[in-house]
Amino acid sequence: MKRLIFLFLSLLTASLAWSQVKVVYHLSEGIPQAARAMGNIRNHLAADPSAKIVVVTHGAGIDFLLEGANTPNNQPFAGAIGELAGRGVEFRVCNNTLTTRQIPKERVAMEASVVTSGVAEVARLQAREGHVYLRP
Amino acid sequence: MKRLIFLFLSLLTASLAWSQVKVVYHLSEGIPQAARAMGNIRNHLAADPSAKIVVVTHGAGIDFLLEGANTPNNQPFAGAIGELAGRGVEFRVCNNTLTTRQIPKERVAMEASVVTSGVAEVARLQAREGHVYLRP
Amino acid sequence: MKRLIFLFLSLLTASLAWSQVKVVYHLSEGIPQAARAMGNIRNHLAADPSAKIVVVTHGAGIDFLLEGANTPNNQPFAGAIGELAGRGVEFRVCNNTLTTRQIPKERVAMEASVVTSGVAEVARLQAREGHVYLRP
Repeated sequence: MKRLIFLFLSLLTASLAWSQVKVVYHLSEGIPQAARAMGNIRNHLAADPSAKIVVVTHGAGIDFLLEGANTPNNQPFAGAIGELAGRGVEFRVCNNTLTTRQIPKERVAMEASVVTSGVAEVARLQAREGHVYLRP
Repeated sequence: MKRLIFLFLSLLTASLAWSQVKVVYHLSEGIPQAARAMGNIRNHLAADPSAKIVVVTHGAGIDFLLEGANTPNNQPFAGAIGELAGRGVEFRVCNNTLTTRQIPKERVAMEASVVTSGVAEVARLQAREGHVYLRP
Repeated sequence: MKRLIFLFLSLLTASLAWSQVKVVYHLSEGIPQAARAMGNIRNHLAADPSAKIVVVTHGAGIDFLLEGANTPNNQPFAGAIGELAGRGVEFRVCNNTLTTRQIPKERVAMEASVVTSGVAEVARLQAREGHVYLRP
């Protein structure tokens, strides 16, 4: 009985724990959406510094993570990516997109990791890792 | 032991309670998206009158909530905003957007409230207050 | 007491069960979005064959489900719809849209079912049936 009570209390504690907000930013549109997203994420972290943000990209959404990518104002994206990665933001790129568009992995920013499928990753982060959804 | 059982049963009841559907409508695109959203929300409430709807806006998404805003058909938005607010729909505007675009709060419709960050609010409503997400 | 323990253990089991990922794909934009979505869903199922996918459509999002609909490359959508339906993907069409656009139900692909309101269905699937959200 004691063990059962302990198990129950552990569960209770876990479910009541005031955990970090985890968010998946879903990007598939291209450079203008990515530029908006960089600003959104800065504002997000300013309002909630403990938020965990994962940016999942596929299709044209990966473009800002390719070498030499520039914002609509002709600034390199590299600065914003490095800065946000340094604050714990993760960037993930869809391998199906790399294959379809014949883009070698070497062209992807080193801050980003490659996942099998962007859409499956967006769903998995929500269903399995407690992220909420946001499309910038 | 009695107290523990009581606590457990209370938790059980709470988790099984058939609660209201709560939804965050995320608007960041501008007038055409906002016009679609007003129609979507009317249809939503017709199909599920008990739904709790919160409209969170940032970027160009706040435009329909500014004084004098008109729909693409040149009708004032004010009527639809007042009507939906009267049915319990809430409207929230991103303060970062007001600052960046140098828009005084007085120009925002009185039915809307101002939040620190639109994106952080979209995430918070999902992670902390049980809302589901919808981008019109 | 025994019954209480049994109830508790059942709950525990249920909550720990490793269930299927369930996803609602939300389509409201038209043919180009629908064409992207068909590719996304194929990639999704390749990466996670057990995923349960429901495609909810309203507004211009229903167009690819109407008879004679073609992709931007002038291929009939019928093939992709039939193939995905055969793999368990469900397609739902908003009745408000059919009414507003005066489209008879007979013109909707037989693989699709009609729901009262597309947006209410997107919210219901998330709030009541454990789906996560994805906008292609």
